[in-house]
Amino acid sequence: MTGNFWRCVWVLGLLFLQVGTGYGRQIPCDDSLSLWQNRSVKTAIVAFVQHVSDPDDAAYVPPEDRIVTIDMDGTLVCERPSPVAMVFAESLLKELAEAPQLQGRLPYDAARQDRLKSLRKNHFELFFGMSGAGLEEDAVRQKVRALARQGRHPRFERPYRELFYRPMLQLITYLMQNDFIVYVLSGSDQTVVRTLCAERPELAGLPPARFIGTLVALDVDYGTQGPVFYRLARELEPVNLRKGKALNILYRIGQQPILAIGNSGGDCDMLAATLGSRYPSTLRLLLRHDDDAREYAYPTTKKSSSPDRKGDTGLCRTRVGSDILSISMKDDFRQIFDLPAQ
Amino acid sequence: MTGNFWRCVWVLGLLFLQVGTGYGRQIPCDDSLSLWQNRSVKTAIVAFVQHVSDPDDAAYVPPEDRIVTIDMDGTLVCERPSPVAMVFAESLLKELAEAPQLQGRLPYDAARQDRLKSLRKNHFELFFGMSGAGLEEDAVRQKVRALARQGRHPRFERPYRELFYRPMLQLITYLMQNDFIVYVLSGSDQTVVRTLCAERPELAGLPPARFIGTLVALDVDYGTQGPVFYRLARELEPVNLRKGKALNILYRIGQQPILAIGNSGGDCDMLAATLGSRYPSTLRLLLRHDDDAREYAYPTTKKSSSPDRKGDTGLCRTRVGSDILSISMKDDFRQIFDLPAQ
Repeated sequence: MTGNFWRCVWVLGLLFLQVGTGYGRQIPCDDSLSLWQNRSVKTAIVAFVQHVSDPDDAAYVPPEDRIVTIDMDGTLVCERPSPVAMVFAESLLKELAEAPQLQGRLPYDAARQDRLKSLRKNHFELFFGMSGAGLEEDAVRQKVRALARQGRHPRFERPYRELFYRPMLQLITYLMQNDFIVYVLSGSDQTVVRTLCAERPELAGLPPARFIGTLVALDVDYGTQGPVFYRLARELEPVNLRKGKALNILYRIGQQPILAIGNSGGDCDMLAATLGSRYPSTLRLLLRHDDDAREYAYPTTKKSSSPDRKGDTGLCRTRVGSDILSISMKDDFRQIFDLPAQ
Repeated sequence: MTGNFWRCVWVLGLLFLQVGTGYGRQIPCDDSLSLWQNRSVKTAIVAFVQHVSDPDDAAYVPPEDRIVTIDMDGTLVCERPSPVAMVFAESLLKELAEAPQLQGRLPYDAARQDRLKSLRKNHFELFFGMSGAGLEEDAVRQKVRALARQGRHPRFERPYRELFYRPMLQLITYLMQNDFIVYVLSGSDQTVVRTLCAERPELAGLPPARFIGTLVALDVDYGTQGPVFYRLARELEPVNLRKGKALNILYRIGQQPILAIGNSGGDCDMLAATLGSRYPSTLRLLLRHDDDAREYAYPTTKKSSSPDRKGDTGLCRTRVGSDILSISMKDDFRQIFDLPAQ
C-alpha cells in the first residue's frame, strides 16, 4: 500500500510537470475508478482495459470491436424487492384492476388479488405486454419517467433513478473513455430500460440502440405527426434473458463481447458469449450482492444452485468455465448510491 | 448548365489557390457525388446534407441524431429477377429437395416442383427459416459469401457482389463523411444482408448492428469455443417489411430517421417514419427503376396501385404526403454497376 501510494505521488508529480502526457491515464491510482476499492477486481479491470487498448500489446482489440455487454437489473441498478420494470408493470395492472369490466380476466384479476408474482413467473412472455396493452409508447415513456422521478423505493425511500450503483456508472464512463462500445442488455421491457437509463447523465452518451431489452409487440399507425405505436398484449421472442441474451447479441450487435458484466444466472449466456470472441483476452464479471447494510445480501440457499436463481454463479462457472471474477458489493464498492442531497 | 460549369471552374480555382478551406465541400460540383447527374435530386440531396450539417442553420441536426435508413434490395443492389436472399434460400431448398426422405414435405417438395414463388409469397414468415433449418449460422455465412462471389446473375453474368448500385454506395460514403449514422433496413434474411454487404469495401465502415433484416429464429448451444447458433424453421416477428420497418426503427434504433431511401411500397412505412422526427427538415427518396438498358424498367400496371407492389409510389405518396423525391435510375445515375475489370 505504501509503495503504491508513493508511486502515485510520483506519477501525479510527473503529470503536474506535464511530463509524459497520457501516461497518467494508465495508472490505477488516477481517479477514473475512485469509487472502487483498490482490490484485485479493480486491478484486473484496469489491466484488462490497458491491454486491449494498447496497439503494441498482444491482447490489443481495435476500438470497433471493443464490445462490452452489461446487465441492468441488479448490475447497474437495485432490483430488490422488484426490478423497476416489474414495479411499473404492476402499477399498470393495478390501475386496470380498478375497472369493473375486467373482473374475472387474467391478469387484471391477479393484480386485484395480489397474485402478481406467480403471474410474472408463469407468464413472463405476457407480463409486460398485458400490463400496458393498448397504451401508446409515448404514454408508456411518460409514465416510466414519472415513476423513475417520483416513485419511491420502499426501503431506501428515494426515487428509482437514484438507485443506480455509482461505481458501475463510473466503470461505464471509464470504459467509454477507453473507446469501448457499451451495450446494456436487460430482461426488462426495453422501453423501461431506455427511459430509466435516460435519467442518468452518466449514460447520456449512449444512443437508444445500445439498450437492448425484452420487446413488447407493437402495432403502428400513421398520423400527420408520423408513426404512433400501440402496445399489444404480449412480448416478442426472444425474451432477453438467458439464451435470449446470447441470441440478441448476435441479432442486435453482431459482434461477440470482449467484456461482459452481470449478476445472476440469467446472465450466464451473455458471459459465455465472450468465449466466442476472436480476441485472446476477454473478461467476465459477476456482481455479488453481499451488502445487507448498504443494499441487499442475496441469500445463497441450496435451491439457488439452479443456474437461473439470482445470486448463484456456481453453475454459471461450470458452463462458462471458472474464469469469472466476482465483484463484492461490500468489499469493492466505496459508495453504492448517489449521496443524499445536502 | 453553362452558368453552373463556370461556377464550378471558379470554385475549383479558389480551392486550387487554397482560399476558403472547406468551402469547396459545400459545392455540388465537387466529386462527392460524381456518379450522379447534376439534376434536381442531386441538388436536393446536397442542399439537405449542407443544411442539417450546418450548426448555424435552422435545419441543423446534431450528428448523434443524423439517422438515415436505406432499403437494400432494389435500392442498393439489383433485386431482379430475385433478391439475393431469395436466390440463396432457393438454392438451399433445392439442395434439400434432393433428399428422398423429404419427398412429400413442404417446402422441399415445392423446391422440387418449382413452386417456390408461391411458397415465398404465401409463407414469407417461413421461407428463410425453412430453407436453412438446422444449419449453423457460420455455415450460412460461408454459403452466402460463396454465392456473392461465385454465383452469377442470370442476365448480367457477374457475381452478385458486383451488382450494387455504385451511385448509391457513393451516396452512403458522402453521408458518412457528413457524420450521418447509416442503417440498412431490408426485408431479407439479416444474415444474408450482413454477409452480402460485408463484401463491399464502401460499406466496411458500418458495424453489423447497422444492418437490420428479417431475423431467422435460432437456438444456441455452447462449445469450448463459445456459442454455436442453429437455425430453426421459422422467422421471428416482425418481418422487416412495411410496418415491420417502422417497428424495427423503434426497436433497433430508437430514433426516427431524418432521411429515408427506398424503392417500393414495402418502404412506405420507413419513409413515413421520418415524419416522426423532431427536426424540421427531413428527406424521403424513392429509386425508380426505369432503365431497361442498364438495369431493369419495372412495369407500372394498374395492379401496381397497391402500396405493396414494386415500383409503385402512388399510394406511398398518399400515405406519407406528396413530399417524396424520385431518383430516376436512367436520368440520375451516370453509371450503375462496377465497371468490368480490364
